[in-house]
Amino acid sequence: MTPFTLSPGQVAFVGAGPGDPELLTLKALRALAQADVVIHDRLISDEVLALAGPEARLIEAGKTGFGPAVTQEAINALMVEHADTGARVVRLKSGDPGVFGRLDEEIDALDEARIGWTIVPGLTSATAAVAGIGQSLTKRERNSAVRFVTGHDMKGYADHDWRALARPGEVAAIYMGKRAARFIQGRLLMHGADPETPVTVVENASRADERRLTATLSTLPAVIASSALDGPAILLLGLAPRAAQALTLTKQEVS
Amino acid sequence: MTPFTLSPGQVAFVGAGPGDPELLTLKALRALAQADVVIHDRLISDEVLALAGPEARLIEAGKTGFGPAVTQEAINALMVEHADTGARVVRLKSGDPGVFGRLDEEIDALDEARIGWTIVPGLTSATAAVAGIGQSLTKRERNSAVRFVTGHDMKGYADHDWRALARPGEVAAIYMGKRAARFIQGRLLMHGADPETPVTVVENASRADERRLTATLSTLPAVIASSALDGPAILLLGLAPRAAQALTLTKQEVS
Repeated sequence: MTPFTLSPGQVAFVGAGPGDPELLTLKALRALAQADVVIHDRLISDEVLALAGPEARLIEAGKTGFGPAVTQEAINALMVEHADTGARVVRLKSGDPGVFGRLDEEIDALDEARIGWTIVPGLTSATAAVAGIGQSLTKRERNSAVRFVTGHDMKGYADHDWRALARPGEVAAIYMGKRAARFIQGRLLMHGADPETPVTVVENASRADERRLTATLSTLPAVIASSALDGPAILLLGLAPRAAQALTLTKQEVS
Repeated sequence: MTPFTLSPGQVAFVGAGPGDPELLTLKALRALAQADVVIHDRLISDEVLALAGPEARLIEAGKTGFGPAVTQEAINALMVEHADTGARVVRLKSGDPGVFGRLDEEIDALDEARIGWTIVPGLTSATAAVAGIGQSLTKRERNSAVRFVTGHDMKGYADHDWRALARPGEVAAIYMGKRAARFIQGRLLMHGADPETPVTVVENASRADERRLTATLSTLPAVIASSALDGPAILLLGLAPRAAQALTLTKQEVS
C-alpha cells in the first residue's frame, strides 16, 4: 500500500495512543511528521508532541483537565480556519479518537465546512493498561465480551447495565472512573456483585509514571482516596494483575 | 523512555494490528526487527511479516482458518523450545493480543516453564473498522458504553445480553460474527431490537482488500449470504457508514 499522505487543506484525526510514544502507529507518526498544524488535547505528552515536524505549529486545545477549557466550538473553528488556509492539519487526540473522543462533533463541523478528513485510529488506554498487568480483556471460559464504559457523562455519573456488570467473570474498562468510584461500587454491590471482585486502577497507562493500584470492589473508594491520583486513570473491573490474581486464587482455595 | 528491547530467551506477545502494516505500533516494529523467531497467526499479512529482520525465522502457527490447525499445546511448546535456546521470540497475533487472542493460555505455559514475557498491545480490528466508516464507537447522547463481543465461543454461538444490546443507540463490535449472523439477528429481534438498526460488516478491515457491506438487522443474513466473504469480518452493530447514516436519518424524517 502507498504510505499515508496528508493532503493540504485536509484534517487527520489521529489517535496518539495512551502516552508511550512507542505505542503510536507508524501512520500516526507519518501524519505528525507531515502536519503543518497540530491541534492537540491537553493530555498529550511532550514526547509525543516532539514527533511533529520542526516547522509544525502546535496548538493546545485542552477540553479536559483543570486549566481553562477551550470550547468545542473554538476547536472546530480552529480546524476549519487552518484547513481553509491550505494547511495540513492533525487533530491529535489521546488514545483512540473513536473511544470517548468526541469525534463526531468535530467531523460534523468539517463536513459543514466541506473540508476533507480522515481518521487514523490509535491504541485506547484500556488496551495498554491491561497489557501492563499481564491480563487480557477477554478470556475463554471467563468472558466472551468486554465493555468500555465511561464513569461519567454529560448528565453526571453515567448509568450502565449494572446487573450484567455485577455478574462473576464480567470484565469492563471504566474510563473517567476515579470520581465515580463510590457510585460505581454502590451500583454494582446493589446488583449483587461479589465485594471481592478484583478491580485494578491504572493511572497514566504505558507512561514512565504509570501507577497500578490493586483493589477489590469493597476497597476501591478507599484505595483511590488514599492514592492522590492526578493523571488519567482506567478502572479494570474484574481484573487483577497476573501475580496478585494468582495469590487471590490461592487465598480463596485455602479459606 | 528507553526504546523497547527484547532480551534473549524472552517472548514478546505482539499485536500485529488489523492488517495495514502502517497500523503497527513503533514498539511492534522494534520487536519484529529484533526477533530471532516469529511465531505468527495464519491471518498475518505478508506485508507485516516482511517487517521481521532478514535473519528471523518465521513459523506459521495457524489456529484459525481453513488449513490444518496447529494445536494450542504445539504453539506453547514452540515458544518454550525456542526461548530455551536463548532466541528472542515474538509471538505475533492479529489485532490486539488481549482481545479474543487466547493470550492467557500461552502466558500460563511460559510461566510454567519460567520464561520471561511481555505484551505489546496492538490495534484491535474494531477500531480500524469503525475509523474506516467515519464513525466512532462511543458518542455523546447516543452511547456511553461499547461492547466487543464474539459471535461464537467454545460452546457454539455465544450468548450475550441480547436485551441490552437490542436497545436503541447500543453499539457493539461483533468478532467472528459471520456465521452467527442469523442467530444474532434472531436473538436481537426477539428482544425487541428495531429491524432497521444499522449493521455494517467490515471484511479485512484496514487492508487493501477491505470491503464494507451496509445492512440493517433485518437484511443482515441475506447481505452476508450474497457477498461471499472469505476474510475475517467484524459486524458493527448500531453503526452505518457516515454518509449512509445521514441518508437513513433523512428517510426516517420523511416517513
